[in-house]
Amino acid sequence: MADLTSSFCSPRPRLPIRSVNRTNGALRSRCCKVRCVAAPAQEAVTTGVKRNENIQKLQAGYLFPEIARRRRAHQEKNPDAKIISLGIGDTTEPVPKSIADAMQKAAAGLATLEGYSGYGAEQGRGEVRQAICDRFYSHVGRKATEIFVSDGSKCDIGRLQMMFGASTSVAVQDPSYPVYVDSSVIMGMTDGYDESSKGFGRLEYMVCRPENDFFPDLSKVRPTDLIFFCNPNNPTGAAATRKQLEELVAFARKNGSIIIYDAAYAIYISDPERPQSIFEIPGAEECALETCSFSKYAGFTGVRLGWTVVPEQLRYSDGTPVITDFNRIMTTIFNGASVVAQAGGLACLQDEGFKEMQELVSFYKENAAILRTTFKDLGFSVFGGEDAPYVWVGFPGKPSWDVFAEILERCNIVTTPGSGFGPAGEGFVRASAFGHREDILEAVERFKKEFGGR
Amino acid sequence: MADLTSSFCSPRPRLPIRSVNRTNGALRSRCCKVRCVAAPAQEAVTTGVKRNENIQKLQAGYLFPEIARRRRAHQEKNPDAKIISLGIGDTTEPVPKSIADAMQKAAAGLATLEGYSGYGAEQGRGEVRQAICDRFYSHVGRKATEIFVSDGSKCDIGRLQMMFGASTSVAVQDPSYPVYVDSSVIMGMTDGYDESSKGFGRLEYMVCRPENDFFPDLSKVRPTDLIFFCNPNNPTGAAATRKQLEELVAFARKNGSIIIYDAAYAIYISDPERPQSIFEIPGAEECALETCSFSKYAGFTGVRLGWTVVPEQLRYSDGTPVITDFNRIMTTIFNGASVVAQAGGLACLQDEGFKEMQELVSFYKENAAILRTTFKDLGFSVFGGEDAPYVWVGFPGKPSWDVFAEILERCNIVTTPGSGFGPAGEGFVRASAFGHREDILEAVERFKKEFGGR
Repeated sequence: MADLTSSFCSPRPRLPIRSVNRTNGALRSRCCKVRCVAAPAQEAVTTGVKRNENIQKLQAGYLFPEIARRRRAHQEKNPDAKIISLGIGDTTEPVPKSIADAMQKAAAGLATLEGYSGYGAEQGRGEVRQAICDRFYSHVGRKATEIFVSDGSKCDIGRLQMMFGASTSVAVQDPSYPVYVDSSVIMGMTDGYDESSKGFGRLEYMVCRPENDFFPDLSKVRPTDLIFFCNPNNPTGAAATRKQLEELVAFARKNGSIIIYDAAYAIYISDPERPQSIFEIPGAEECALETCSFSKYAGFTGVRLGWTVVPEQLRYSDGTPVITDFNRIMTTIFNGASVVAQAGGLACLQDEGFKEMQELVSFYKENAAILRTTFKDLGFSVFGGEDAPYVWVGFPGKPSWDVFAEILERCNIVTTPGSGFGPAGEGFVRASAFGHREDILEAVERFKKEFGGR
Repeated sequence: MADLTSSFCSPRPRLPIRSVNRTNGALRSRCCKVRCVAAPAQEAVTTGVKRNENIQKLQAGYLFPEIARRRRAHQEKNPDAKIISLGIGDTTEPVPKSIADAMQKAAAGLATLEGYSGYGAEQGRGEVRQAICDRFYSHVGRKATEIFVSDGSKCDIGRLQMMFGASTSVAVQDPSYPVYVDSSVIMGMTDGYDESSKGFGRLEYMVCRPENDFFPDLSKVRPTDLIFFCNPNNPTGAAATRKQLEELVAFARKNGSIIIYDAAYAIYISDPERPQSIFEIPGAEECALETCSFSKYAGFTGVRLGWTVVPEQLRYSDGTPVITDFNRIMTTIFNGASVVAQAGGLACLQDEGFKEMQELVSFYKENAAILRTTFKDLGFSVFGGEDAPYVWVGFPGKPSWDVFAEILERCNIVTTPGSGFGPAGEGFVRASAFGHREDILEAVERFKKEFGGR
């Protein structure tokens, strides 16, 4: 995202290569003698380490840095343009007062003997785990000991993938948050990219389109070990009904799959017929884990705090509880979320903070309603934006990167092209409701001006 | 570490198992019909997901939670004992004022429009990268764009392992920080544990003992893709000389290896003949990356902030810069370090903060000197503690878990058994210099009392 990174985005060097070849520790040195003397200026020296072939399967860069790159290019071409971003789902409003106060107090406390805190438990502070449980999970039978506090869901997904390992098979909603697919590719859970299907081999894409109410036709889904399920979905904004989630849980139980349920936007669900947690569905505790985050709840995108719930009842085929291995992963390659962020998370769950957090969510939901109404009034097919902070706008028959480019060109507005979320996202763009109100209103005016007469 | 976790540490359930068997997505359901009805109370229902066989190779839990468990057991047996911990290397002194102030200000700012910050660059704030570079790396030719700011070195090691992938071969110092070995095992870079050698197959153990000045005899080391090298070493406290590091770099270059240089304690090196960064060695930029952390520099063990330096010149055998893939990993499964922690990191690197940070390091170094002198006076063989916050005490011929237990029993002092760091750590315990001065002095008194007459 930063300009600082642009200097090393070129994937291959153009210089001649000089290297040492070594396989499995057996030395096959071709040119070790010359490598110990200064190399000529034009020659690139390499190590003998083979590049991870799974990473080579990845196509472009991660979606959002790519969008940032295109935005920068547009800004450079149009230095006076006031660009509005409805692109990356990045929160814009200040952290509520009582929550920021708690973090301020924790930070100040670090300078005192009483307030200082070194390593905490890798799983998170006991009070934070308990408070998350009390607010969101006690009523669905979960326990504080099943909750692991982290620096966010995106990071937890990486750790979960490392835990499950390369031999697991994976299904994702199509479209979906790119991290599920990219991390599966990196871990070796897929074959290479297939240009014709616009997808990776071995990965099961569960198509979610208007035709199926954005819920996959499970009779056509190949059973896999893992099912990533984001609800409400990013990017479509669709929130599944209770009946749909019951179907999903029955499908997973029948096939012995584990659902990795991403509830990062669950608090945006208002409809009581649409569950906020997978654990509202009986039996889910034996086939699902859930990850969630304070990012879109309390504007913690920069603060970094999330959690993952792994029920004790969730077991591998040999009977080992999944929580045993997740605990081992968290204690081995994680070292606890920042104590300052955790103080903020605890404040989010107190009565005052919880009320403030809900008001913040309501504000973004009003933004979503404004965007949704605008696109509807302009005659577009519009989805999402009711139980989610994302509005999913259809441009049938048009490549979504073209739509992205057209909106950027004509309106100076950044959206996210649907195809960046998977092949079934083609023909859509996502508009994020995270923004200052005046920017949302200004964006709406621009859309009306540019697309009003179509 | 927390009591909350103890309930799921048993690796295998004792209940009968009912499961679904499925391989590579092909369904082989044995009992899917019975799984959809309520299971009898005594029967554990499992998924069909196979447990990651790499994780099964791991032996006990991660070292420090195991020590915490033994400490708790001792405390329960001796409720009045005032236990002093020289075990886990956890900082105890408050964060210096100007640094905590900066974090306090950043946290307070989050409640304002001007001070609010959402997602930052996944690679870290530009100013933080620049400041790290200016303080530690400009003089050795590194650039700010090569520095990735993170939530700590331990977490970066996990991400590095995911980047390199399962097919890379690995060497570690023996003894060493357990995360290198455990993460290698989890990623599938090793074979199983061999009880006779006390090590994992395919993993190259580079023995570091008093006999070789704690620097491996490289003529006996099998070449590998990756060489984890912690300097000053945790746990031995040995800091390599310039000549030794030149040997290491020449060895890596000759074999085409990549050194993952862990400099988490580099600031504790006083001897000018012992480099603080691997990049002080010419040619290292083509065969090494370096990870470091504010944890032991500024007491940030709870705050969480570190960094990894990947030189542009470091390349895979096909010529691809390693930084390209590390950037992809960081943008895909990481989301930036907490903005509050980064504000603290920036303050650490300003003149005032840097001076305060150095004073803090000096304090812990005085602790180390006190411990070192005590053990020397008591007639033990003592290593480390001069350029590192760890003192490595020899108990020749005694199993180190027995020594650990004896010290805990007789002195109510927690140490870390050397064998927990690798087979060559057997016969030693590590004493950490992180502690309040009065605790260090009290520990010293207890050691003198219990071991003075031996």
